[in-house]
Amino acid sequence: MVRVVVLRWGHRPRDYRLTSHLALTARALGAEGMILADVKDESIKKTVEKVVDRWGGPFFFEMGIPWKEVVKKWKNEGGIVVHLTAYGENIENSNVMDRIRKTGKDILVIVGSQKVPSVFFSEEVSDFNVAIGNQPHSECASLAVFLDRYFEGKELVKEFKNAKLKIDPLPRGKKVIRLG
Amino acid sequence: MVRVVVLRWGHRPRDYRLTSHLALTARALGAEGMILADVKDESIKKTVEKVVDRWGGPFFFEMGIPWKEVVKKWKNEGGIVVHLTAYGENIENSNVMDRIRKTGKDILVIVGSQKVPSVFFSEEVSDFNVAIGNQPHSECASLAVFLDRYFEGKELVKEFKNAKLKIDPLPRGKKVIRLG
Repeated sequence: MVRVVVLRWGHRPRDYRLTSHLALTARALGAEGMILADVKDESIKKTVEKVVDRWGGPFFFEMGIPWKEVVKKWKNEGGIVVHLTAYGENIENSNVMDRIRKTGKDILVIVGSQKVPSVFFSEEVSDFNVAIGNQPHSECASLAVFLDRYFEGKELVKEFKNAKLKIDPLPRGKKVIRLG
Repeated sequence: MVRVVVLRWGHRPRDYRLTSHLALTARALGAEGMILADVKDESIKKTVEKVVDRWGGPFFFEMGIPWKEVVKKWKNEGGIVVHLTAYGENIENSNVMDRIRKTGKDILVIVGSQKVPSVFFSEEVSDFNVAIGNQPHSECASLAVFLDRYFEGKELVKEFKNAKLKIDPLPRGKKVIRLG
């Protein structure tokens, strides 16, 4: 199966909540891991580790790696780069998703904040620029919809390994099972 | 067409960024408006109004209304309430989405933060409890995937009215058109 990794660009300390949500979204929607570009943020690392410890993995979180290095390595190893941006081809009425799938290659999904370096749009960085509708909204929403469509929903029924807790879905109420 | 409105519960001032993202996600993914339950937050109101002014609408934002009042009025007017929660029926491997559609009724989507009042799970409040996978992640991601699946992607090609700006999708680069 194709591997998907998320590269989060543009994190600042005040984005703690949002970037944590991005990491948990990446994990729950089928990505293998998330890399925090350029900066370190121990609080996010702790949050992710806590979730993986309780709810299972595998899901990796790395930080402080220059984005250029991540992209270069990814491409050298034969992967492609998908940049999520409001300016890109609309996932709904273009064939961009088909073209991405046809590559059959592992995908590095770059999510930035509002204003990314213009080089992100160029071939040097992105193989595809994808918009989840051409309206400004949220990188969290974009990432979630992209992954849900890419994995066709199968990511939502995946079993996580080494989980200590697992939710048993209910129409009403909350049921959590303790495992292992 | 069925109307969908989002009710955001549990907002605190430090959630400014996240709640703004929720509002913009609601707008871009096809909801008619968002209500901020119980509290007021002028900064979010301003953010939403700015986006609607520039990128078009209609999309309403109300705040400071007690959640009980919103729910009561919605149900009295014949609508149903869908509560998004990690504990609910998994959208991917249950028939909850079919049952929601079959009602044919307008939908109030409640998104909370981590710990919502247990009454949200009861019939008194929710007609359906829906999980976007039974893993903890983000209300932003959950809302986006729920709306994308509910509207089957059509929300992503909708034209907004009275827009001053519009993005023309490109495989590379940024093209913004000034309208009217």
